[in-house]
Amino acid sequence: MFTVTIRDHVMIAHSLRGEVFGPAQRLHGATYVVDAGFAGPELDADGILVDIGRATDVVREVLDRLRYRNLDNEDLVAGQNSTTEVLARWVADRLAERAAGGDLGPGGQALAGIEVTLHESHVARASYQRAL
Amino acid sequence: MFTVTIRDHVMIAHSLRGEVFGPAQRLHGATYVVDAGFAGPELDADGILVDIGRATDVVREVLDRLRYRNLDNEDLVAGQNSTTEVLARWVADRLAERAAGGDLGPGGQALAGIEVTLHESHVARASYQRAL
Amino acid sequence: MFTVTIRDHVMIAHSLRGEVFGPAQRLHGATYVVDAGFAGPELDADGILVDIGRATDVVREVLDRLRYRNLDNEDLVAGQNSTTEVLARWVADRLAERAAGGDLGPGGQALAGIEVTLHESHVARASYQRAL
Amino acid sequence: MFTVTIRDHVMIAHSLRGEVFGPAQRLHGATYVVDAGFAGPELDADGILVDIGRATDVVREVLDRLRYRNLDNEDLVAGQNSTTEVLARWVADRLAERAAGGDLGPGGQALAGIEVTLHESHVARASYQRAL
Amino acid sequence: MFTVTIRDHVMIAHSLRGEVFGPAQRLHGATYVVDAGFAGPELDADGILVDIGRATDVVREVLDRLRYRNLDNEDLVAGQNSTTEVLARWVADRLAERAAGGDLGPGGQALAGIEVTLHESHVARASYQRAL
Amino acid sequence: MFTVTIRDHVMIAHSLRGEVFGPAQRLHGATYVVDAGFAGPELDADGILVDIGRATDVVREVLDRLRYRNLDNEDLVAGQNSTTEVLARWVADRLAERAAGGDLGPGGQALAGIEVTLHESHVARASYQRAL
Repeated sequence: MFTVTIRDHVMIAHSLRGEVFGPAQRLHGATYVVDAGFAGPELDADGILVDIGRATDVVREVLDRLRYRNLDNEDLVAGQNSTTEVLARWVADRLAERAAGGDLGPGGQALAGIEVTLHESHVARASYQRAL
Repeated sequence: MFTVTIRDHVMIAHSLRGEVFGPAQRLHGATYVVDAGFAGPELDADGILVDIGRATDVVREVLDRLRYRNLDNEDLVAGQNSTTEVLARWVADRLAERAAGGDLGPGGQALAGIEVTLHESHVARASYQRAL
Repeated sequence: MFTVTIRDHVMIAHSLRGEVFGPAQRLHGATYVVDAGFAGPELDADGILVDIGRATDVVREVLDRLRYRNLDNEDLVAGQNSTTEVLARWVADRLAERAAGGDLGPGGQALAGIEVTLHESHVARASYQRAL
Repeated sequence: MFTVTIRDHVMIAHSLRGEVFGPAQRLHGATYVVDAGFAGPELDADGILVDIGRATDVVREVLDRLRYRNLDNEDLVAGQNSTTEVLARWVADRLAERAAGGDLGPGGQALAGIEVTLHESHVARASYQRAL
Repeated sequence: MFTVTIRDHVMIAHSLRGEVFGPAQRLHGATYVVDAGFAGPELDADGILVDIGRATDVVREVLDRLRYRNLDNEDLVAGQNSTTEVLARWVADRLAERAAGGDLGPGGQALAGIEVTLHESHVARASYQRAL
Repeated sequence: MFTVTIRDHVMIAHSLRGEVFGPAQRLHGATYVVDAGFAGPELDADGILVDIGRATDVVREVLDRLRYRNLDNEDLVAGQNSTTEVLARWVADRLAERAAGGDLGPGGQALAGIEVTLHESHVARASYQRAL
């Protein structure tokens, strides 16, 4: 199995509802350093899993929906908290849609899975891994 | 599958028995930068896999058993060398016990697995991955 | 010259006023990974520049003033934007006050300078360096 | 499952054939920071998965075949582009041969799998994972 | 003193003339992860040292002159080896020209110095620091 | 001014005398990831500040004196605690002697300064900077 992983980042504001979050219930924010990994069993005739230029563009476009926004005002994850876990899944699901829609090129449609990791600091991160 | 990973560290002394270890048979030590990853298929109603505050506390408490100690004098891993591999498993097994015992909260009891990585330097690390 | 550097982090929300900031004029946020460096020419009788336990506590306490807050509502940097540069200076100045006040112990009062770096992502950071 | 991972690096020149590569069709080069991970279910009597000294030597020897070379002139990956994906597989396959041949010691022959990651920059990497 | 640092990267081929370089006399290549630091004593009315958007563009444009090129065929550093040290100075000197020419905006013309670090691997880097 | 920096590491045991050290008064250990930086104003005719091969060897040889040792039993820093600060100075002083003695080649004798950083974990490090 091959995996190609691209790093980008996004800066957002949000608050989290629920006593478990303590002071993070207040409006605050985060830089998420995002590792978007694309996995598949075969390379194409050029020797690549996916066109890394297209993949970089698609990751940036997906993150643009979050970029410099207060997620409390965005209708992204209806009714749910925008935790690191929830956002990792949201990014992975958007990338999966884009891959299925052909935006990653023909290689993108042969992918087996996607794993998205959001690093919220140097000491905490969350990932979501899904099949395609 | 979701994974939430927390980073902490611990500094220990130990020696390793066996010719394969060469000069590491002498009493020396290590800083282990520890990545403790908790994996599970579902988020709770708050949108989290596990209470990251509790998880941080539990990781720190587990590592406290090792912290600033000479492992040659501790009865941790009966008869075995305290290699990076053995310590990764020891940490993962302690975290598994704590999760099963409810110390990570209800989310902790729904976890599917744990992966612990000990970075012993910028060029070497060992991991142990287990189901819960 | 010796330097001892401690890493911590803080997550905040804010907006930035001025066309130069483009989309960062919107309310968004950041994780700042903070490197607080204490510099001085001499070690004390214990062989340390500063008590790292106290220094760690003081850095955390200074950052607590920012932690999980919307800086637009805080009276921190009167009339100024809370840019990464301004926040680096704000943190360095608070640490300088604490060092002068004895909160870092006697070693802290013999320090020559402080340098604070705020990493706002994996590709951008700002520092402020000052004498004591 | 245990994994032991060793980091090394190699610097090469090459060009890539195919419009998808854009300006990377020109002769250029890369530093690949290489993470070679060895996985297996059991530790030996010394408490190790694999002799890390031997593993370090074998990784260095495998990378020596690439080191400071123009891969366009090397007969490594017949007819294929030497993309990061292809090179990750090439390294993993060579390590698998060396493990099977006993060069990693008895522990090497009990390994279950190998994963090789080539970091081509701070924002892009490719991995190849295979069974043994 | 404030410093704002931006990270980018570039991939090149080259060879180095001189016995001191050993096998690096062969045509090979490198990924340089580039940290471009801009230093100055004062912030402008917006609270910034330099427009980070412009600075990011200028760093990318300067590196474009190197990007995906065989430096042996480029007339960059007449008669000199394109060592990491020489390239760090070349990048710093180009950034200094751009700052002097106003391409970083008015803040760029008030800068005091530039420091450029080229990381050639996870274990080696070279920097060049100059006044403006 | 140019700086060339090489990374290596060393694993040691030690204890620290003095109440300020709390539990670190017990015998424990550390991995120090060592950045050895050599600074100077001029490059030689080859375009290098210092022969990086020789510098790498000298750094390794200096660290060999510490490697896999219990520093409590070594006569390194007479009467002093082997704190991170003290060890950073010890390494820098040994490198300075080696540079003065010609072990870094002619370039080494034209160096202006040395800075040694010891990273004791992902959250703490100490540096010592000296002239040559």
